[in-house]
Amino acid sequence: MATEEFPLPTEFSPETAQLLRPDIDEFRRQAHEVVEWMAEYLGRVGELRVQPDLAPGSIRLRLPVTPPEDPEPMAAILADFRTVIMPGMTHWNHPGFFGFFPANTSPPSILAEMLTATLGAQCMSWSTSPAATELEQVTMEWLAWMLKLPEGFTGVIQDTASAATLVALVTARDRFTKFEAPHRVEDLTVYTSPEANSSVAKDARLAGFPPERIRFVETDEGFAMRPDLLAEMMAEDREAGLVPAAVVATAGTTSSAAVDPLPEICRICATAGPLKPWVHVDAAFAGSAAILPEMRWILEGVDGADSLVFNPHKWLLVNFDCSAYFVRDVPALLRSFSASAHYLAAPHQGVVPDYRDWGIPLGRRFRALKLWFVLRRYGVKVLQAMLREHIRLGELLAAWVDESPAFERLATARFGLVCFRHHPSGEDDAAALDARNERLVNSLNASGKILLTPTRLGGKYSLRLSIGHLTTSEAEVRRAWDLIVETAGRI
Amino acid sequence: MATEEFPLPTEFSPETAQLLRPDIDEFRRQAHEVVEWMAEYLGRVGELRVQPDLAPGSIRLRLPVTPPEDPEPMAAILADFRTVIMPGMTHWNHPGFFGFFPANTSPPSILAEMLTATLGAQCMSWSTSPAATELEQVTMEWLAWMLKLPEGFTGVIQDTASAATLVALVTARDRFTKFEAPHRVEDLTVYTSPEANSSVAKDARLAGFPPERIRFVETDEGFAMRPDLLAEMMAEDREAGLVPAAVVATAGTTSSAAVDPLPEICRICATAGPLKPWVHVDAAFAGSAAILPEMRWILEGVDGADSLVFNPHKWLLVNFDCSAYFVRDVPALLRSFSASAHYLAAPHQGVVPDYRDWGIPLGRRFRALKLWFVLRRYGVKVLQAMLREHIRLGELLAAWVDESPAFERLATARFGLVCFRHHPSGEDDAAALDARNERLVNSLNASGKILLTPTRLGGKYSLRLSIGHLTTSEAEVRRAWDLIVETAGRI
Repeated sequence: MATEEFPLPTEFSPETAQLLRPDIDEFRRQAHEVVEWMAEYLGRVGELRVQPDLAPGSIRLRLPVTPPEDPEPMAAILADFRTVIMPGMTHWNHPGFFGFFPANTSPPSILAEMLTATLGAQCMSWSTSPAATELEQVTMEWLAWMLKLPEGFTGVIQDTASAATLVALVTARDRFTKFEAPHRVEDLTVYTSPEANSSVAKDARLAGFPPERIRFVETDEGFAMRPDLLAEMMAEDREAGLVPAAVVATAGTTSSAAVDPLPEICRICATAGPLKPWVHVDAAFAGSAAILPEMRWILEGVDGADSLVFNPHKWLLVNFDCSAYFVRDVPALLRSFSASAHYLAAPHQGVVPDYRDWGIPLGRRFRALKLWFVLRRYGVKVLQAMLREHIRLGELLAAWVDESPAFERLATARFGLVCFRHHPSGEDDAAALDARNERLVNSLNASGKILLTPTRLGGKYSLRLSIGHLTTSEAEVRRAWDLIVETAGRI
Repeated sequence: MATEEFPLPTEFSPETAQLLRPDIDEFRRQAHEVVEWMAEYLGRVGELRVQPDLAPGSIRLRLPVTPPEDPEPMAAILADFRTVIMPGMTHWNHPGFFGFFPANTSPPSILAEMLTATLGAQCMSWSTSPAATELEQVTMEWLAWMLKLPEGFTGVIQDTASAATLVALVTARDRFTKFEAPHRVEDLTVYTSPEANSSVAKDARLAGFPPERIRFVETDEGFAMRPDLLAEMMAEDREAGLVPAAVVATAGTTSSAAVDPLPEICRICATAGPLKPWVHVDAAFAGSAAILPEMRWILEGVDGADSLVFNPHKWLLVNFDCSAYFVRDVPALLRSFSASAHYLAAPHQGVVPDYRDWGIPLGRRFRALKLWFVLRRYGVKVLQAMLREHIRLGELLAAWVDESPAFERLATARFGLVCFRHHPSGEDDAAALDARNERLVNSLNASGKILLTPTRLGGKYSLRLSIGHLTTSEAEVRRAWDLIVETAGRI
């Protein structure tokens, strides 16, 4: 027995024991102090630079290369957090953050995260925290109701849309290689558009689909997948002896929020072979908008799809991570993702879900709590009003762009996302326009006042302004536009 | 343009705007109230039932089937949290929680989670939060230093060991199917032991290895993988034209904390073919113990391994999720996991890591902060003292078991994990012993005073008591043992 060869020191001093046993009064004091900082931060985040102005590696240089041997006081750690870490943060909840997509936090969600961290419960199976499992069932049903998903979809929280899409593609792969048909994975094809999120092609590779079998179906001038080309490519692939196994359609692409034509895609898949390709809908960002009756069209056709993911942690005021994955064929999911072992066996199986069997990680945080807090604190109507307002602000900005002769809009403004570029009259050299707009973005981001993430649309370098933070008002958007116009005129 | 067909209501009332704009004073009040609850909970968690006594589905019945249309006051939500959710929680930080493996929270870690939730930063690339990326580099270097990992391992935080093992197996698969050799995945074999965590075989299936190519190498009487059998199986597979692609060795198995013989495994792999199989070490639980000089032997041979995972969120006082993945061949990892797209391009690439390219999810929480808080607040020496004390308590319990004629130990006690069963003299019917011990576990768990997760060892139903919570003292272990003896005598 190894421990006999290596006798253990048994010293466990009273001081060590005391340091380890949580001092409730001390924790209370420190937590209240942290709350004061949190409140102050939320109140003043708009006064900070959105993004720090730092050379890569400069924070690291300020930190020791080895951990301390002895305990340090919490006050010193919190002081370093404020002076070393904070100046190096990009503030995703800054009202001038118009980059990527929003990653909202909100007071009820933060309160829930405080409770989740305190409970530290593992939500891998029902028995390891029954209330967490059942609240996840309930909140997923609430979301399905809000999205007006057709009967037959069951929801589960995944950490991210990238992981959820991987889950969908693995389930699809297994359907075509193991369970419903014994094809070789080398013969399977996956279809998506070049405008899909980069994680889709990555997920297809991770699921083991050969890279040369990942087909990018060209888009129309509005950056949505062309169903006629999808049908053609599928037919050609079938003729070549290949087997179409999955299509990932996007509702709200990352670059320009384009919506792939789901009804046509599903119709094509319904007749694409003896075994229908799995249709997964990546609505990571824009899915939230589908809780608006006038925006529900973006999920039209979902009754022909097999799975759908959207991120309440983007535009629905829930802290990251909280990705809602809805799937029709739960037995197929469990077939691919269940992990059974005796130490995990439990008598309730079949009655309530063990969510460790519904995704990649065995361990899971209690993420339903923040979703529940947010949905109740705001209610559906306020969330709808917020989404409408953000969409209105995007259309307003689009109108300002259209009215300005020196600017050019590069895509339809949808879901608060506006893509455009500076295009002074007379300047028509493509490379020069790209360079000019790249300088513009860099200059805007360097200002520390706003943050934009550029993209390319139809080969053109594009500014991309994404509106979706709960505090973003017309005044903020106006300020951003004025800054863009002013900066463009200067460079 | 779709929005023209569906004119949006523009109503965004001042009341709605006010509700959405965080009221800092209200948040401060509510957060302080939540802190009071948190402190009180941490102080009284030991007085609660470890596990609720509830029928599956009973919490769900108490919740409405649809979300509220209108906002609800935070006070009502917090009240429901206390009265509906709390009675349905299993308390992983209860001092009587001896189930699974520990999933510690600790005051410094909870404080860090409060800050992380407030910042809501996305840590997918350096620029999206520079300080988070650089702190992740630094804290991973601290952990590598603590584990005395050989030069050449680079660390990155993954969410769970299950996901980290999937990352390892996908990287290994791609090495053998794409980059270093163009084998077909159907011809690849993966080796692990039947005592490996259930997630290992699941991960191998998810990575696309054919289920019939996942080899379970039998263990010795101490439940560690037999290297002689591994060598035999590999040789047979090679003779059959198959290609050994990966071995997952466990340092601290889930059932009994057995340690697979890593030096021999690595030696076998070094000569196992023209391309060495990828050796991944799953030290999810026991890896923390390797920061003790006298326990470092569990990682002996790691210089021959390709990757290693251990979970600071288990036994190192860091809130879930925080899984430390160390990998030698970073270019191979990036080859499999990088997702490149223009909107993600950034000028610093190559200088600092973009961790979205180091794992499955694109989005990532700021998890290095809690690790930093914990390592600094306790320091290496206190963490070492705690681990030693837990190991001592396990050996103490093992001694009590050994001294008791009615009980029988079923495995070496290691890392605070003790496996044993009630075995009254004269009762030697295997099925009767299993039934007796199953009744014992059920009765103990139903008491609400302690929680054990049973397992099977060598075909025998075994009690399994896992010590590792920061508050667990000798008195707690004594109380648990007394309860076990008393209950066993009664049933």
